[in-house]
Amino acid sequence: MTLDPDRLCVHQVTLMKQCDFAQSLDAFVRNGIFKTAVWREKLDAIGTQEGSRLLKDSGVDAVSLCAGGFLTSRDPANFQSSLDDNRRWIEQAAAIGAASLVVITGGLDEGDRDLAGARKRALEGFSQLIPEARAAGIRLALEPLHPMVCGFRSVLSSLREANDWLDQLESDSAMAREVLGIALDSYALWWEADLEAQIERAGQRIINFHVSDWLPDTCDLRLDRGMPGDGGIDNLRIRQWIEAQGYNGPVEVEIFSERNWWLRDPNEVLKVIKERCATAI
Amino acid sequence: MTLDPDRLCVHQVTLMKQCDFAQSLDAFVRNGIFKTAVWREKLDAIGTQEGSRLLKDSGVDAVSLCAGGFLTSRDPANFQSSLDDNRRWIEQAAAIGAASLVVITGGLDEGDRDLAGARKRALEGFSQLIPEARAAGIRLALEPLHPMVCGFRSVLSSLREANDWLDQLESDSAMAREVLGIALDSYALWWEADLEAQIERAGQRIINFHVSDWLPDTCDLRLDRGMPGDGGIDNLRIRQWIEAQGYNGPVEVEIFSERNWWLRDPNEVLKVIKERCATAI
Repeated sequence: MTLDPDRLCVHQVTLMKQCDFAQSLDAFVRNGIFKTAVWREKLDAIGTQEGSRLLKDSGVDAVSLCAGGFLTSRDPANFQSSLDDNRRWIEQAAAIGAASLVVITGGLDEGDRDLAGARKRALEGFSQLIPEARAAGIRLALEPLHPMVCGFRSVLSSLREANDWLDQLESDSAMAREVLGIALDSYALWWEADLEAQIERAGQRIINFHVSDWLPDTCDLRLDRGMPGDGGIDNLRIRQWIEAQGYNGPVEVEIFSERNWWLRDPNEVLKVIKERCATAI
Repeated sequence: MTLDPDRLCVHQVTLMKQCDFAQSLDAFVRNGIFKTAVWREKLDAIGTQEGSRLLKDSGVDAVSLCAGGFLTSRDPANFQSSLDDNRRWIEQAAAIGAASLVVITGGLDEGDRDLAGARKRALEGFSQLIPEARAAGIRLALEPLHPMVCGFRSVLSSLREANDWLDQLESDSAMAREVLGIALDSYALWWEADLEAQIERAGQRIINFHVSDWLPDTCDLRLDRGMPGDGGIDNLRIRQWIEAQGYNGPVEVEIFSERNWWLRDPNEVLKVIKERCATAI
Protein backbone atom coordinates (compact mmCIF):
# COMPACT_ATOMS: atom_id res chain seq x y z
CA MET A 1 0.00 0.00 0.00
CA THR A 2 1.39 3.42 -0.97
CA LEU A 3 2.55 5.43 2.01
CA ASP A 4 0.15 8.16 3.11
CA PRO A 5 2.20 11.36 2.44
CA ASP A 6 1.22 12.66 5.89
CA ARG A 7 3.25 9.83 7.42
CA LEU A 8 6.46 10.79 5.62
CA CYS A 9 9.14 12.07 7.97
CA VAL A 10 12.59 13.16 6.87
CA HIS A 11 15.36 13.01 9.44
CA GLN A 12 17.53 16.12 9.68
CA VAL A 13 20.63 13.99 9.13
CA THR A 14 19.47 13.34 5.58
CA LEU A 15 20.46 16.95 4.86
CA MET A 16 23.37 16.85 7.32
CA LYS A 17 25.92 18.81 5.30
CA GLN A 18 23.62 21.11 3.36
CA CYS A 19 21.36 22.57 6.04
CA ASP A 20 21.52 23.91 9.54
CA PHE A 21 18.46 23.50 11.78
CA ALA A 22 16.46 26.38 10.29
CA GLN A 23 17.45 25.65 6.70
CA SER A 24 16.34 22.02 7.01
CA LEU A 25 12.89 23.12 8.21
CA ASP A 26 12.63 25.58 5.32
CA ALA A 27 13.52 22.84 2.86
CA PHE A 28 10.98 20.45 4.38
CA VAL A 29 8.17 23.03 4.26
CA ARG A 30 9.03 24.05 0.68
CA ASN A 31 8.60 20.40 -0.27
CA GLY A 32 5.44 19.75 1.69
CA ILE A 33 7.06 17.64 4.42
CA PHE A 34 5.87 18.37 7.94
CA LYS A 35 7.55 15.74 10.08
CA THR A 36 11.20 15.46 11.04
CA ALA A 37 13.48 13.75 13.49
CA VAL A 38 15.74 16.27 15.17
CA TRP A 39 19.48 15.69 15.22
CA ARG A 40 20.69 16.78 18.63
CA GLU A 41 23.88 18.44 17.36
CA LYS A 42 21.85 20.66 15.02
CA LEU A 43 19.50 21.64 17.82
CA ASP A 44 22.37 22.38 20.20
CA ALA A 45 23.93 24.66 17.61
CA ILE A 46 20.99 27.08 17.91
CA GLY A 47 19.67 26.20 21.37
CA THR A 48 16.53 24.41 22.47
CA GLN A 49 14.39 27.52 22.81
CA GLU A 50 15.17 28.81 19.33
CA GLY A 51 14.74 25.30 17.90
CA SER A 52 11.31 24.97 19.50
CA ARG A 53 10.28 28.35 18.15
CA LEU A 54 11.42 27.46 14.61
CA LEU A 55 9.57 24.16 14.73
CA LYS A 56 6.40 25.85 15.90
CA ASP A 57 6.61 28.66 13.35
CA SER A 58 7.30 26.26 10.49
CA GLY A 59 4.54 23.84 11.36
CA VAL A 60 7.01 20.92 11.21
CA ASP A 61 6.52 18.32 13.94
CA ALA A 62 9.52 16.83 15.75
CA VAL A 63 8.82 13.12 15.88
CA SER A 64 11.85 12.34 17.99
CA LEU A 65 15.17 13.66 19.22
CA CYS A 66 18.26 11.68 18.14
CA ALA A 67 20.34 10.33 19.68
CA GLY A 68 20.71 9.74 23.37
CA GLY A 69 22.05 6.79 25.31
CA PHE A 70 25.83 6.10 25.23
CA LEU A 71 25.79 4.14 28.46
CA THR A 72 28.60 1.59 28.17
CA SER A 73 31.41 3.33 30.02
CA ARG A 74 33.29 1.20 32.56
CA ASP A 75 34.21 4.27 34.55
CA PRO A 76 31.48 4.90 37.17
CA ALA A 77 31.89 8.69 37.00
CA ASN A 78 31.58 8.68 33.21
CA PHE A 79 28.57 6.39 33.41
CA GLN A 80 26.86 8.75 35.87
CA SER A 81 27.71 11.73 33.73
CA SER A 82 26.15 9.97 30.70
CA LEU A 83 23.00 9.41 32.73
CA ASP A 84 22.93 13.14 33.53
CA ASP A 85 23.36 13.94 29.84
CA ASN A 86 20.37 11.76 29.08
CA ARG A 87 18.29 13.50 31.72
CA ARG A 88 19.01 16.79 29.94
CA TRP A 89 18.22 15.25 26.55
CA ILE A 90 14.89 13.97 27.86
CA GLU A 91 14.01 17.53 28.92
CA GLN A 92 15.19 18.78 25.55
CA ALA A 93 13.00 16.25 23.73
CA ALA A 94 10.02 17.37 25.79
CA ALA A 95 10.76 21.02 25.08
CA ILE A 96 10.65 20.53 21.31
CA GLY A 97 7.44 18.50 21.56
CA ALA A 98 8.99 15.20 20.46
CA ALA A 99 7.28 11.98 21.51
CA SER A 100 10.52 10.03 21.91
CA LEU A 101 14.23 10.21 22.54
CA VAL A 102 15.97 7.65 20.35
CA VAL A 103 18.65 5.98 22.46
CA ILE A 104 21.62 3.90 21.35
CA THR A 105 23.83 2.01 23.77
CA GLY A 106 27.26 3.24 22.74
CA GLY A 107 30.10 0.87 21.81
CA LEU A 108 32.98 -0.69 23.67
CA ASP A 109 35.25 1.44 25.85
CA GLU A 110 38.85 1.63 24.70
CA GLY A 111 40.53 -1.67 25.57
CA ASP A 112 37.27 -3.29 26.66
CA ARG A 113 36.71 -6.86 25.44
CA ASP A 114 33.85 -7.70 27.77
CA LEU A 115 30.90 -7.27 25.42
CA ALA A 116 28.47 -8.90 27.86
CA GLY A 117 29.55 -6.41 30.55
CA ALA A 118 29.02 -3.45 28.23
CA ARG A 119 25.56 -4.74 27.37
CA LYS A 120 24.72 -5.11 31.03
CA ARG A 121 25.72 -1.51 31.80
CA ALA A 122 23.62 -0.13 28.94
CA LEU A 123 20.60 -2.14 30.08
CA GLU A 124 21.08 -0.85 33.62
CA GLY A 125 21.41 2.71 32.32
CA PHE A 126 18.17 2.52 30.38
CA SER A 127 16.37 1.15 33.42
CA GLN A 128 17.55 4.12 35.50
CA LEU A 129 16.18 6.63 32.99
CA ILE A 130 12.64 5.27 33.03
CA PRO A 131 11.28 7.44 35.87
CA GLU A 132 12.66 10.71 34.42
CA ALA A 133 11.37 9.88 30.95
CA ARG A 134 7.95 9.09 32.32
CA ALA A 135 7.84 12.32 34.31
CA ALA A 136 8.69 14.26 31.15
CA GLY A 137 6.18 12.35 29.02
CA ILE A 138 8.95 11.14 26.72
CA ARG A 139 9.31 7.61 25.43
CA LEU A 140 12.77 6.10 25.13
CA ALA A 141 13.09 4.35 21.78
CA LEU A 142 15.88 1.77 22.03
CA GLU A 143 17.53 1.51 18.64
CA PRO A 144 19.50 -1.64 17.85
CA LEU A 145 22.18 -0.77 15.30
CA HIS A 146 23.94 -2.90 12.73
CA PRO A 147 26.47 -5.38 14.14
CA MET A 148 29.15 -3.59 12.11
CA VAL A 149 28.98 -0.70 14.58
CA CYS A 150 29.00 -2.97 17.65
CA GLY A 151 32.57 -1.94 18.46
CA PHE A 152 32.10 1.81 18.47
CA ARG A 153 28.44 2.82 18.56
CA SER A 154 25.96 0.17 19.70
CA VAL A 155 26.40 -3.10 21.53
CA LEU A 156 22.69 -3.75 20.94
CA SER A 157 22.87 -5.45 17.55
CA SER A 158 19.59 -7.12 16.65
CA LEU A 159 15.84 -6.84 17.11
CA ARG A 160 15.87 -10.18 18.89
CA GLU A 161 18.22 -8.75 21.48
CA ALA A 162 16.16 -5.54 21.81
CA ASN A 163 13.11 -7.70 22.48
CA ASP A 164 15.07 -9.68 25.09
CA TRP A 165 16.11 -6.44 26.78
CA LEU A 166 12.56 -5.10 26.83
CA ASP A 167 11.31 -8.40 28.25
CA GLN A 168 13.73 -7.97 31.09
CA LEU A 169 13.12 -4.25 31.65
CA GLU A 170 9.36 -4.78 31.62
CA SER A 171 9.61 -7.57 34.17
CA ASP A 172 11.73 -5.31 36.41
CA SER A 173 9.65 -2.13 36.21
CA ALA A 174 5.93 -1.52 35.98
CA MET A 175 6.59 1.71 34.11
CA ALA A 176 8.78 0.16 31.42
CA ARG A 177 5.98 -0.88 29.11
CA GLU A 178 4.61 2.64 29.05
CA VAL A 179 7.96 4.40 28.66
CA LEU A 180 10.17 2.15 26.55
CA GLY A 181 9.83 1.24 22.92
CA ILE A 182 11.96 0.29 19.93
CA ALA A 183 13.20 2.38 17.01
CA LEU A 184 13.43 -0.05 14.11
CA ASP A 185 15.88 0.94 11.41
CA SER A 186 15.69 -1.20 8.28
CA TYR A 187 19.35 -0.53 7.43
CA ALA A 188 20.43 -1.87 10.82
CA LEU A 189 18.28 -4.99 10.83
CA TRP A 190 17.44 -6.09 7.27
CA TRP A 191 19.88 -9.03 7.47
CA GLU A 192 18.22 -10.55 10.58
CA ALA A 193 17.04 -14.04 9.66
CA ASP A 194 13.87 -14.03 11.72
CA LEU A 195 13.10 -10.33 11.36
CA GLU A 196 9.42 -10.90 10.64
CA ALA A 197 9.00 -13.07 13.73
CA GLN A 198 10.90 -10.56 15.88
CA ILE A 199 8.68 -7.74 14.58
CA GLU A 200 5.67 -9.80 15.55
CA ARG A 201 7.21 -10.34 18.96
CA ALA A 202 7.93 -6.62 19.28
CA GLY A 203 4.31 -5.78 18.41
CA GLN A 204 3.37 -2.41 19.89
CA ARG A 205 6.90 -1.83 21.10
CA ILE A 206 7.83 -0.39 17.72
CA ILE A 207 7.42 3.37 18.06
CA ASN A 208 9.83 4.65 15.40
CA PHE A 209 10.56 3.28 11.94
CA HIS A 210 13.62 4.44 9.97
CA VAL A 211 14.28 3.54 6.35
CA SER A 212 17.21 3.79 3.97
CA ASP A 213 18.88 1.23 1.70
CA TRP A 214 21.90 -1.06 1.57
CA LEU A 215 24.02 -0.24 -1.48
CA PRO A 216 25.61 -3.20 -3.28
CA ASP A 217 28.94 -1.35 -3.47
CA THR A 218 28.79 0.24 -0.04
CA CYS A 219 32.13 1.58 1.15
CA ASP A 220 31.72 2.80 4.73
CA LEU A 221 30.51 1.32 8.00
CA ARG A 222 28.34 4.28 8.89
CA LEU A 223 28.10 7.07 6.36
CA ASP A 224 27.22 5.34 3.09
CA ARG A 225 23.51 4.59 3.27
CA GLY A 226 21.43 4.54 0.12
CA MET A 227 18.08 6.01 -0.89
CA PRO A 228 15.21 3.49 -0.53
CA GLY A 229 14.95 1.72 -3.88
CA ASP A 230 18.66 1.88 -4.68
CA GLY A 231 19.78 -1.23 -2.81
CA GLY A 232 19.00 -4.66 -1.41
CA ILE A 233 16.53 -3.85 1.39
CA ASP A 234 12.87 -4.64 0.88
CA ASN A 235 11.57 -1.65 2.84
CA LEU A 236 8.02 -2.15 1.58
CA ARG A 237 7.88 -5.65 3.00
CA ILE A 238 9.38 -4.57 6.33
CA ARG A 239 6.82 -1.76 6.56
CA GLN A 240 4.05 -4.32 5.89
CA TRP A 241 5.32 -6.50 8.74
CA ILE A 242 5.38 -3.54 11.12
CA GLU A 243 1.95 -2.31 10.07
CA ALA A 244 0.57 -5.82 10.62
CA GLN A 245 1.40 -5.12 14.29
CA GLY A 246 -0.73 -1.99 14.24
CA TYR A 247 1.99 0.58 13.55
CA ASN A 248 0.68 3.54 11.58
CA GLY A 249 3.14 6.21 12.71
CA PRO A 250 5.73 8.18 10.78
CA VAL A 251 8.11 6.54 8.32
CA GLU A 252 11.43 8.32 8.71
CA VAL A 253 13.89 8.53 5.85
CA GLU A 254 17.30 8.67 7.52
CA ILE A 255 20.21 8.69 5.09
CA PHE A 256 23.80 9.16 6.20
CA SER A 257 25.54 9.57 2.85
CA GLU A 258 28.90 11.25 2.70
CA ARG A 259 29.56 10.49 -0.96
CA ASN A 260 26.15 11.13 -2.49
CA TRP A 261 23.04 12.56 -0.86
CA TRP A 262 24.86 14.93 1.47
CA LEU A 263 26.45 16.52 -1.61
CA ARG A 264 23.18 17.26 -3.43
CA ASP A 265 20.76 20.13 -3.46
CA PRO A 266 18.22 19.72 -0.62
CA ASN A 267 15.25 20.18 -2.96
CA GLU A 268 16.55 17.44 -5.22
CA VAL A 269 17.05 15.05 -2.28
CA LEU A 270 13.54 15.70 -0.98
CA LYS A 271 12.02 15.38 -4.45
CA VAL A 272 13.60 11.94 -4.87
CA ILE A 273 12.39 10.87 -1.42
CA LYS A 274 8.84 11.88 -2.34
CA GLU A 275 9.04 9.95 -5.61
CA ARG A 276 10.29 6.87 -3.78
CA CYS A 277 7.26 7.00 -1.47
CA ALA A 278 5.25 5.63 -4.38
CA THR A 279 7.63 2.74 -5.09
CA ALA A 280 10.09 1.84 -2.38
CA ILE A 281 9.21 3.23 1.05
CA MET B 1 44.91 -22.26 28.62
CA THR B 2 47.78 -21.35 26.29
CA LEU B 3 47.30 -22.68 22.79
CA ASP B 4 49.32 -25.77 21.97
CA PRO B 5 51.70 -24.50 19.22
CA ASP B 6 50.90 -27.59 17.15
CA ARG B 7 47.32 -26.33 16.82
CA LEU B 8 48.33 -22.98 15.33
CA CYS B 9 47.29 -22.62 11.70
CA VAL B 10 47.96 -19.53 9.61
CA HIS B 11 45.66 -18.91 6.68
CA GLN B 12 47.39 -18.07 3.39
CA VAL B 13 45.32 -14.88 3.14
CA THR B 14 47.19 -13.51 6.14
CA LEU B 15 50.16 -13.08 3.77
CA MET B 16 47.91 -12.29 0.80
CA LYS B 17 50.00 -9.54 -0.79
CA GLN B 18 53.47 -10.64 0.25
CA CYS B 19 53.57 -14.32 -0.75
CA ASP B 20 52.49 -16.58 -3.54
CA PHE B 21 51.61 -20.19 -2.71
CA ALA B 22 55.19 -21.47 -2.46
CA GLN B 23 56.50 -18.38 -0.65
CA SER B 24 53.80 -18.65 2.00
CA LEU B 25 54.77 -22.26 2.74
CA ASP B 26 58.43 -21.26 2.98
CA ALA B 27 57.55 -18.50 5.43
CA PHE B 28 55.44 -20.86 7.55
CA VAL B 29 58.18 -23.51 7.72
CA ARG B 30 60.85 -20.90 8.53
CA ASN B 31 58.69 -19.88 11.49
CA GLY B 32 57.80 -23.36 12.69
CA ILE B 33 54.19 -23.27 11.52
CA PHE B 34 52.96 -26.47 9.89
CA LYS B 35 49.27 -25.89 9.30
CA THR B 36 47.62 -23.61 6.79
CA ALA B 37 44.29 -22.93 5.15
CA VAL B 38 44.69 -22.76 1.40
CA TRP B 39 43.31 -19.77 -0.49
CA ARG B 40 41.86 -21.12 -3.71
CA GLU B 41 43.11 -18.27 -5.89
CA LYS B 42 46.69 -18.91 -4.77
CA LEU B 43 46.35 -22.60 -5.48
CA ASP B 44 44.83 -21.99 -8.90
CA ALA B 45 47.73 -19.72 -9.79
CA ILE B 46 50.12 -22.69 -9.66
CA GLY B 47 47.75 -25.60 -10.24
CA THR B 48 46.47 -28.28 -7.91
CA GLN B 49 49.18 -30.81 -8.69
CA GLU B 50 52.04 -28.41 -8.04
CA GLY B 51 50.28 -27.14 -4.92
CA SER B 52 49.91 -30.66 -3.56
CA ARG B 53 53.57 -31.37 -4.24
CA LEU B 54 54.70 -28.19 -2.48
CA LEU B 55 52.53 -28.95 0.55
CA LYS B 56 53.90 -32.48 0.77
CA ASP B 57 57.51 -31.40 0.34
CA SER B 58 57.20 -28.63 2.92
CA GLY B 59 55.46 -30.74 5.54
CA VAL B 60 52.73 -28.11 5.90
CA ASP B 61 49.22 -29.54 6.28
CA ALA B 62 46.32 -28.00 4.41
CA VAL B 63 43.53 -27.83 6.98
CA SER B 64 40.95 -26.58 4.52
CA LEU B 65 40.44 -25.06 1.10
CA CYS B 66 38.79 -21.60 1.06
CA ALA B 67 36.35 -20.63 -0.21
CA GLY B 68 33.64 -22.45 -2.07
CA GLY B 69 29.89 -21.94 -2.15
CA PHE B 70 28.49 -18.82 -3.92
CA LEU B 71 25.10 -20.35 -4.48
CA THR B 72 22.64 -17.46 -4.46
CA SER B 73 22.19 -16.79 -8.17
CA ARG B 74 18.60 -16.40 -9.36
CA ASP B 75 19.57 -17.54 -12.83
CA PRO B 76 19.18 -21.35 -13.01
CA ALA B 77 22.10 -21.76 -15.43
CA ASN B 78 24.40 -19.71 -13.19
CA PHE B 79 23.24 -21.66 -10.16
CA GLN B 80 24.03 -24.96 -11.89
CA SER B 81 27.39 -23.68 -13.02
CA SER B 82 28.18 -22.69 -9.41
CA LEU B 83 27.32 -26.21 -8.30
CA ASP B 84 29.73 -27.55 -10.93
CA ASP B 85 32.43 -25.18 -9.67
CA ASN B 86 31.91 -26.55 -6.17
CA ARG B 87 32.21 -30.11 -7.43
CA ARG B 88 35.62 -29.20 -8.85
CA TRP B 89 36.62 -27.46 -5.62
CA ILE B 90 35.66 -30.53 -3.60
CA GLU B 91 37.99 -32.61 -5.79
CA GLN B 92 40.65 -29.96 -5.41
CA ALA B 93 40.30 -30.01 -1.62
CA ALA B 94 40.68 -33.78 -1.64
CA ALA B 95 43.73 -33.56 -3.89
CA ILE B 96 45.60 -31.29 -1.47
CA GLY B 97 44.66 -33.47 1.49
CA ALA B 98 42.39 -30.89 3.14
CA ALA B 99 39.70 -32.12 5.52
CA SER B 100 37.19 -29.47 4.57
CA LEU B 101 36.05 -27.04 1.92
CA VAL B 102 34.94 -23.82 3.62
CA VAL B 103 31.77 -22.66 1.89
CA ILE B 104 30.10 -19.25 1.99
CA THR B 105 26.70 -18.60 0.51
CA GLY B 106 27.41 -15.60 -1.70
CA GLY B 107 25.45 -12.35 -1.47
CA LEU B 108 22.43 -10.89 -3.23
CA ASP B 109 22.26 -10.92 -7.02
CA GLU B 110 22.22 -7.50 -8.65
CA GLY B 111 18.76 -6.00 -8.13
CA ASP B 112 17.65 -8.81 -5.82
CA ARG B 113 15.74 -7.74 -2.69
CA ASP B 114 14.42 -11.16 -1.77
CA LEU B 115 16.84 -12.13 0.98
CA ALA B 116 14.74 -15.11 2.07
CA GLY B 117 14.81 -16.41 -1.50
CA ALA B 118 18.61 -16.09 -1.72
CA ARG B 119 18.94 -17.94 1.57
CA LYS B 120 16.70 -20.72 0.29
CA ARG B 121 18.78 -21.18 -2.86
CA ALA B 122 22.04 -21.39 -0.90
CA LEU B 123 20.54 -23.96 1.46
CA GLU B 124 19.34 -26.00 -1.51
CA GLY B 125 22.77 -25.74 -3.14
CA PHE B 126 24.56 -27.02 -0.06
CA SER B 127 22.14 -29.96 0.17
CA GLN B 128 22.92 -30.92 -3.43
CA LEU B 129 26.66 -31.02 -2.76
CA ILE B 130 26.46 -33.47 0.13
CA PRO B 131 26.80 -36.69 -1.91
CA GLU B 132 29.82 -35.46 -3.89
CA ALA B 133 31.53 -34.20 -0.76
CA ARG B 134 30.94 -37.49 0.98
CA ALA B 135 32.29 -39.47 -1.97
CA ALA B 136 35.45 -37.34 -1.91
CA GLY B 137 35.83 -37.59 1.87
CA ILE B 138 35.58 -33.81 2.23
CA ARG B 139 33.53 -31.99 4.82
CA LEU B 140 31.70 -28.83 3.84
CA ALA B 141 32.25 -26.18 6.51
CA LEU B 142 29.44 -23.62 6.28
CA GLU B 143 30.84 -20.27 7.29
CA PRO B 144 28.41 -17.61 8.45
CA LEU B 145 29.95 -14.19 7.73
CA HIS B 146 29.39 -10.82 9.37
CA PRO B 147 26.02 -9.19 8.60
CA MET B 148 27.95 -6.29 7.04
CA VAL B 149 28.77 -8.53 4.05
CA CYS B 150 25.20 -9.86 3.75
CA GLY B 151 24.66 -7.83 0.59
CA PHE B 152 27.65 -9.01 -1.38
CA ARG B 153 29.26 -12.09 0.13
CA SER B 154 27.15 -14.11 2.55
CA VAL B 155 23.44 -14.17 3.26
CA LEU B 156 24.18 -16.54 6.16
CA SER B 157 24.82 -14.00 8.90
CA SER B 158 24.86 -15.63 12.33
CA LEU B 159 25.71 -18.84 14.12
CA ARG B 160 22.07 -19.16 15.15
CA GLU B 161 21.09 -19.21 11.48
CA ALA B 162 23.86 -21.69 10.60
CA ASN B 163 22.53 -23.98 13.33
CA ASP B 164 19.00 -23.60 11.94
CA TRP B 165 20.27 -24.51 8.47
CA LEU B 166 22.11 -27.58 9.74
CA ASP B 167 19.03 -28.67 11.69
CA GLN B 168 17.11 -28.60 8.45
CA LEU B 169 19.79 -30.21 6.28
CA GLU B 170 20.31 -32.98 8.84
CA SER B 171 16.62 -33.71 8.97
CA ASP B 172 16.52 -33.91 5.15
CA SER B 173 19.59 -36.08 4.59
CA ALA B 174 21.10 -38.94 6.54
CA MET B 175 24.54 -38.02 5.22
CA ALA B 176 24.37 -34.38 6.33
CA ARG B 177 25.62 -34.94 9.86
CA GLU B 178 28.71 -36.72 8.60
CA VAL B 179 29.49 -34.27 5.79
CA LEU B 180 28.45 -30.82 6.98
CA GLY B 181 29.96 -28.69 9.68
CA ILE B 182 30.49 -25.07 10.61
CA ALA B 183 33.51 -22.81 10.22
CA LEU B 184 33.30 -20.38 13.10
CA ASP B 185 35.06 -17.07 12.54
CA SER B 186 35.29 -14.88 15.62
CA TYR B 187 35.43 -11.69 13.52
CA ALA B 188 32.15 -12.62 11.85
CA LEU B 189 30.24 -13.59 14.98
CA TRP B 190 31.69 -11.87 18.05
CA TRP B 191 28.72 -9.48 18.28
CA GLU B 192 26.12 -12.30 18.47
CA ALA B 193 24.26 -11.88 21.76
CA ASP B 194 23.81 -15.57 22.50
CA LEU B 195 27.07 -16.75 20.94
CA GLU B 196 27.95 -19.03 23.85
CA ALA B 197 24.54 -20.74 23.71
CA GLN B 198 24.77 -21.11 19.93
CA ILE B 199 28.24 -22.65 20.25
CA GLU B 200 26.78 -25.11 22.75
CA ARG B 201 24.00 -25.84 20.31
CA ALA B 202 26.51 -26.30 17.48
CA GLY B 203 28.55 -28.75 19.58
CA GLN B 204 30.50 -31.08 17.33
CA ARG B 205 29.39 -29.21 14.24
CA ILE B 206 32.26 -26.76 14.65
CA ILE B 207 35.06 -28.09 12.47
CA ASN B 208 37.04 -24.92 11.72
CA PHE B 209 37.83 -22.00 13.98
CA HIS B 210 39.15 -18.71 12.55
CA VAL B 211 40.43 -15.83 14.67
CA SER B 212 41.31 -12.20 14.07
CA ASP B 213 40.28 -9.01 15.84
CA TRP B 214 37.86 -6.10 15.51
CA LEU B 215 39.78 -2.82 15.42
CA PRO B 216 38.15 0.12 17.23
CA ASP B 217 38.91 2.40 14.26
CA THR B 218 38.15 -0.12 11.53
CA CYS B 219 37.67 1.45 8.12
CA ASP B 220 36.60 -1.27 5.68
CA LEU B 221 33.81 -3.84 5.52
CA ARG B 222 36.10 -6.69 4.55
CA LEU B 223 39.82 -5.95 4.39
CA ASP B 224 40.62 -4.30 7.71
CA ARG B 225 40.82 -7.09 10.25
CA GLY B 226 43.14 -6.82 13.21
CA MET B 227 45.68 -9.10 14.87
CA PRO B 228 44.23 -10.98 17.87
CA GLY B 229 44.88 -8.80 20.89
CA ASP B 230 44.60 -5.49 19.03
CA GLY B 231 40.81 -5.07 19.21
CA GLY B 232 37.55 -5.79 20.98
CA ILE B 233 37.12 -9.53 20.44
CA ASP B 234 37.69 -11.87 23.36
CA ASN B 235 39.15 -14.69 21.26
CA LEU B 236 40.36 -16.57 24.34
CA ARG B 237 36.87 -16.77 25.74
CA ILE B 238 35.37 -17.84 22.42
CA ARG B 239 38.01 -20.57 22.12
CA GLN B 240 37.11 -21.74 25.65
CA TRP B 241 33.43 -21.99 24.66
CA ILE B 242 34.32 -24.02 21.58
CA GLU B 243 36.70 -26.30 23.43
CA ALA B 244 34.01 -26.93 26.03
CA GLN B 245 32.18 -28.63 23.14
CA GLY B 246 35.15 -30.93 22.54
CA TYR B 247 36.87 -28.99 19.77
CA ASN B 248 40.63 -29.45 19.85
CA GLY B 249 41.44 -28.80 16.19
CA PRO B 250 43.46 -26.08 14.52
CA VAL B 251 43.07 -22.43 15.43
CA GLU B 252 43.42 -20.48 12.20
CA VAL B 253 44.66 -16.92 12.18
CA GLU B 254 42.97 -15.31 9.17
CA ILE B 255 43.70 -11.62 8.75
CA PHE B 256 42.54 -9.62 5.75
CA SER B 257 44.42 -6.35 6.30
CA GLU B 258 45.01 -4.05 3.38
CA ARG B 259 46.40 -1.17 5.43
CA ASN B 260 48.62 -3.02 7.87
CA TRP B 261 49.53 -6.71 7.99
CA TRP B 262 49.53 -7.21 4.21
CA LEU B 263 52.18 -4.49 4.00
CA ARG B 264 54.59 -6.09 6.47
CA ASP B 265 57.42 -8.55 6.19
CA PRO B 266 56.05 -12.11 6.42
CA ASN B 267 58.49 -13.10 9.15
CA GLU B 268 57.41 -10.15 11.24
CA VAL B 269 53.72 -11.02 10.79
CA LEU B 270 54.31 -14.64 11.78
CA LYS B 271 56.48 -13.66 14.74
CA VAL B 272 53.69 -11.43 16.09
CA ILE B 273 51.13 -14.21 15.59
CA LYS B 274 53.28 -16.61 17.57
CA GLU B 275 53.70 -14.08 20.38
CA ARG B 276 49.96 -13.55 20.50
CA CYS B 277 49.42 -17.29 20.96
CA ALA B 278 50.54 -16.80 24.54
CA THR B 279 48.17 -13.93 25.28
CA ALA B 280 45.27 -13.46 22.88
CA ILE B 281 44.54 -16.48 20.71
